[in-house]
Amino acid sequence: MDAPALKNIWEARRKIEPFIHRTPVLTCRAMDDMCGARLFFKCENFQKAGAFKIRGACNTVFSLDSKEAGRGVATHSSGNHAAALALAARWRGIKAFVVMPENTLAVKKKAVAGYGAEIIYCAPTLESREETLADLVKERQPTVIHPYNDHRIIAGQGTAALELCDDVKDLDMVITPVGGGGLLSGTALTVSELSPKTVIMAAEPEQADDAFRSLQAGRIIPSVNPRTIADGLRTSLGELTFPIIQRYVREIITVPETDIIQAMRIIWERMKIIVEPSAAVTLGALTARRSDINGKRIGVILSGGNVDLDDLPWKAERSTF
Amino acid sequence: MDAPALKNIWEARRKIEPFIHRTPVLTCRAMDDMCGARLFFKCENFQKAGAFKIRGACNTVFSLDSKEAGRGVATHSSGNHAAALALAARWRGIKAFVVMPENTLAVKKKAVAGYGAEIIYCAPTLESREETLADLVKERQPTVIHPYNDHRIIAGQGTAALELCDDVKDLDMVITPVGGGGLLSGTALTVSELSPKTVIMAAEPEQADDAFRSLQAGRIIPSVNPRTIADGLRTSLGELTFPIIQRYVREIITVPETDIIQAMRIIWERMKIIVEPSAAVTLGALTARRSDINGKRIGVILSGGNVDLDDLPWKAERSTF
Repeated sequence: MDAPALKNIWEARRKIEPFIHRTPVLTCRAMDDMCGARLFFKCENFQKAGAFKIRGACNTVFSLDSKEAGRGVATHSSGNHAAALALAARWRGIKAFVVMPENTLAVKKKAVAGYGAEIIYCAPTLESREETLADLVKERQPTVIHPYNDHRIIAGQGTAALELCDDVKDLDMVITPVGGGGLLSGTALTVSELSPKTVIMAAEPEQADDAFRSLQAGRIIPSVNPRTIADGLRTSLGELTFPIIQRYVREIITVPETDIIQAMRIIWERMKIIVEPSAAVTLGALTARRSDINGKRIGVILSGGNVDLDDLPWKAERSTF
Repeated sequence: MDAPALKNIWEARRKIEPFIHRTPVLTCRAMDDMCGARLFFKCENFQKAGAFKIRGACNTVFSLDSKEAGRGVATHSSGNHAAALALAARWRGIKAFVVMPENTLAVKKKAVAGYGAEIIYCAPTLESREETLADLVKERQPTVIHPYNDHRIIAGQGTAALELCDDVKDLDMVITPVGGGGLLSGTALTVSELSPKTVIMAAEPEQADDAFRSLQAGRIIPSVNPRTIADGLRTSLGELTFPIIQRYVREIITVPETDIIQAMRIIWERMKIIVEPSAAVTLGALTARRSDINGKRIGVILSGGNVDLDDLPWKAERSTF
């Protein structure tokens, strides 16, 4: 199956528009001054369920035929995809099953349960997650929705860039975080069509630099046990996202943990908005490349705002600031 | 001198418009569901210098004649008014002096100094503040700008409600926090003229309930050593703000500390925006009056977003949530 075309991203937009927020694009003088560039922040932290993930999940759930939908949907995740899938399933009026480790934060369990999903607990290992999901599929036969390695998901995630390109013209650059590559590949497909001169960049934690290494090597090199605070970016590129990224993305900038935390704090302090570490990695990348972006117009996708307010990263980093 | 008329508030708006942000009005389904009402949040946390205070400070600084302005402006404050006055003075190109206690948080000193004001340190008592300011006035003769008991300040603060009334029609109620009463009296003057059917309410910390008690008693009863986390609301009503509030404000709702903290956390979690405790007291008041506001359209002025991210209130309150 071919990668989504712009047409598919338009269709996704039409499908999900009635359900999701058209998120605002914010600007901030202090941030512009800091980076020496003009930054346009697409605020997916204000999106339904707190992250861009609802775009792909909603597109996919509403693309299922009635037979697939009738069996319900399932995923294994403790993050934003799980909450998004649960919410999209509720909108369609179908069942959602979410496999998550027993040790998942209470706040995340609550979000998923709050959207009406059935949670199936497993041990906190990838093997246990996959086995538990496989058992579930055998027993209940739900339609499994992968968090990024699915063209419907990719097309859905591309709608954020569609809105950004509508709202802001003549961008010199667009930057998104990269984890599994759903947001990045959707953005790349959209922006390369609508604004071919715009350079497409990505930001990745240094401690989970599989995308960076995969692009260098020309093949997918998965992360092994990545240890980054950017919990949304611990996943590795998939077979569908990798070739799109390989084709369209100019460069992946890796960002050390301290820079991610500092960028997150600066966004909170200066913009008065809450973003999660996975979103802040973009600003961390831009500040590291200040000299390359001087005077440029840059679209920045702030991917999400789901954080645990009882466990903020700068407690330990206090002396840095 | 009479209280400001709508004309004065319009003039203030024209004066400050080129400098300040037209802040957005946000809505949030989760908050509406929680309160059983339709809430329109006027986001002054996104305002220049992080709070509505710049409106009054800017109006006052740009209302000075060249002689008054030439001597510079001064205040004693460690809060949002000090930062706002410093920034407004910078815009006009005049000197600002800020008297603040030595033990003021580094982050607040930095903000004021960052806007170019000269800081004069004093001991952390009201007497020392006032003496130090008096000495300064004797020596340098700056024009002292009171944080709220000044009709130019009141008119400036009223411009937030002016924008809110432009953006949202048919409000059943408007609610603001009350400290010294600048924001509340400016809001009351504006809303009572532009939308006479709209009920004007205020929210005040139970631990700093001077406005509540003053309205009951029919005379100003200052707070004595108030202990509330809402640091912007520890001041007491002034001679100019009290009669306006007495005339136009239906009721002052007092809010316990735990409700302020909980409301602040809910706004952060659900709206993904950063507000300070003084702003959150409004939501605390609304949730306490859920049955009275059912189905109503309510304008809520979120007054500011300046918090110390190293000292968030829910650390101690963790078990509550």
